[in-house]
Amino acid sequence: MPRRYLFTVDDLKSYTQRFLMSLDVPQEDAGIMADILISADVRGVDSHGIIRLHTYYGNRLMQKLVEAASPTSVVHETPISLALDGGNGLGPVVAHRAMTRCIEKAKQVGMAAVTVRNSNHYGIAGYYAMMALSHDMIGVSLTNSQPLVAPTYGRTAMLGTNPIAVAVPAGAEYPYVLDMATSIVPIGRVTVYSKSGETIPSGWGMDKDGNLTESPDAVLDGGALLPLGGNDIMRGYKGYGLALLVDILSGVLSGAAFSTDVGHPSNPGQADIGHFFMALKVDLFRPIEEFKRGMDGLLEGMKGAPKAPGCDRIYIHGEKEFDHEKRCETEGVPVIAPVVDVLREAGEQVGVPFDLDPLGEKDTEG
Amino acid sequence: MPRRYLFTVDDLKSYTQRFLMSLDVPQEDAGIMADILISADVRGVDSHGIIRLHTYYGNRLMQKLVEAASPTSVVHETPISLALDGGNGLGPVVAHRAMTRCIEKAKQVGMAAVTVRNSNHYGIAGYYAMMALSHDMIGVSLTNSQPLVAPTYGRTAMLGTNPIAVAVPAGAEYPYVLDMATSIVPIGRVTVYSKSGETIPSGWGMDKDGNLTESPDAVLDGGALLPLGGNDIMRGYKGYGLALLVDILSGVLSGAAFSTDVGHPSNPGQADIGHFFMALKVDLFRPIEEFKRGMDGLLEGMKGAPKAPGCDRIYIHGEKEFDHEKRCETEGVPVIAPVVDVLREAGEQVGVPFDLDPLGEKDTEG
Repeated sequence: MPRRYLFTVDDLKSYTQRFLMSLDVPQEDAGIMADILISADVRGVDSHGIIRLHTYYGNRLMQKLVEAASPTSVVHETPISLALDGGNGLGPVVAHRAMTRCIEKAKQVGMAAVTVRNSNHYGIAGYYAMMALSHDMIGVSLTNSQPLVAPTYGRTAMLGTNPIAVAVPAGAEYPYVLDMATSIVPIGRVTVYSKSGETIPSGWGMDKDGNLTESPDAVLDGGALLPLGGNDIMRGYKGYGLALLVDILSGVLSGAAFSTDVGHPSNPGQADIGHFFMALKVDLFRPIEEFKRGMDGLLEGMKGAPKAPGCDRIYIHGEKEFDHEKRCETEGVPVIAPVVDVLREAGEQVGVPFDLDPLGEKDTEG
Repeated sequence: MPRRYLFTVDDLKSYTQRFLMSLDVPQEDAGIMADILISADVRGVDSHGIIRLHTYYGNRLMQKLVEAASPTSVVHETPISLALDGGNGLGPVVAHRAMTRCIEKAKQVGMAAVTVRNSNHYGIAGYYAMMALSHDMIGVSLTNSQPLVAPTYGRTAMLGTNPIAVAVPAGAEYPYVLDMATSIVPIGRVTVYSKSGETIPSGWGMDKDGNLTESPDAVLDGGALLPLGGNDIMRGYKGYGLALLVDILSGVLSGAAFSTDVGHPSNPGQADIGHFFMALKVDLFRPIEEFKRGMDGLLEGMKGAPKAPGCDRIYIHGEKEFDHEKRCETEGVPVIAPVVDVLREAGEQVGVPFDLDPLGEKDTEG
């Protein structure tokens, strides 16, 4: 674990916003981007946070591979639905607009769905699902992504790690926030093992010939990830089915690219990524207070269930991330030294020096 | 594999209807039950087919544990939503009514969702999702069920095998029909291993102390199934998260029982099972013909992808079941001898002799 510097949430957001504005992103959009990116760090999903500010977003903005103004347009609209074209804009900005419109519609009619085509990587899927929570709605957020996952009985990457995110309000308990790739692990996890020279657990990935491998490099070198479930004995075709479903709703239904046509983040062409969002008012079905009591009962029951040998806690989805958020509010948000180095360098390049004073440093996880 | 008798679809449906009518199920409802139960056999999901006519439905009707008239009532309704009470009726009848209303609403406004509380086991989840297909809609069907699955880091059954079914129309290709338990395998699969005296693959289930076991009997004797994904290294908490989501939407949102409060099929009390349905018109987002061409492209691409070593075919979800359906139409529907024996005995009991002439017999799978 490399040394980590701790920064305040506000400092990181403010820097992110200034950085993006220097690359012609409008002030409001840059603020939205900052909120979404730093939320990932705050929730402990560092892989989707400030680490991508330069390496993905900044780079593509500088190369004019995405539209800094994120010029979204309406393809088709009804009171309960909206099909958007993201205008090859910034994924998080486009997605934020889409979910905002989705919630507005759901406020009027109780439920709405929005598709987006011609977008880019949108960061953490869970952010948009969670936007529904304060409105006492259930939120859904799906996106496709570049091919990394092999279908069951296949040996090449045909589907993205296509995440499913669903957020559901609760009462005294934290909300339920599922935010999962439909592969066993995201590709970033394999990269971490590669960098540290460790082998990966057998079953996570295959080499370019379709053989299961414990070598992270063999997966990265033309291999593929396995869908949730893994092999057929463990019913990996269910994870494959979920990945396919996400591609249907995000890609085919929206009119975006799908399967192997989705552009890779490091590819100069348009990614044409698609998203799908839904918002559903709880009180269409049940008074919200009754529902929240039910949620508390379900979640408390789960957490209080007897533990497996050697385990002392059962978690609800999103709980670890909410705990991490609390720690960040008091201690600051950890950013690893190599990322700070990249930010310093990128800041020089665009003329927005990364001049934040860390609150402190730490060497260990926690 | 025991000897199997082949019957025509119509004969099996007609017998099922007559059997249920003798137990005071109204003619139309009995016809719906027959269609749903026999569809399971026709699609190769024998575990949810005519095998349950007596062992589950007939038994509960005779004991007056379910209401033969399936008296559903409306709890709350809006143009896009419906919350139903199933009146402790027959699950398939109640679910069929719910999805029929859901589709009617979606025809009017484009999309609708329906919850059901106070219902019973509804058979194959995919049936109701597939009802949307002929309307060029995407259909969703979820249900909770009696506790059989342990949450990650837990050691007792806290959640049902809570299936997720989604059906999506295609053009020249078969529709995409995902119909999956959120556990690795359903409990019936473990029972099959127990009966044949074989061990189960490690990872499917745990014994009553929370240790992984290869003994099917140890799973059945107070143990639990593992969620899709399996252990934490293979990200079983995602399967656990999906099972929890299904319980939230089917159980908590509908006001039905959830988690360990859901009644067991062999328990004399009310099951109070909950369901959740959705229907979504494709042309809210994209012209249907364009969408279907996109679906064909996605599905053909998947099936044409390079195969893993030793594999000669990549399947789409539902494809094997559609193939099975075709075979049944020409050859007849296979019913294993032990089930025929039970049907004969039950038929005597209710005064509706199982007098169907088989088209033929076979000894092998296929």
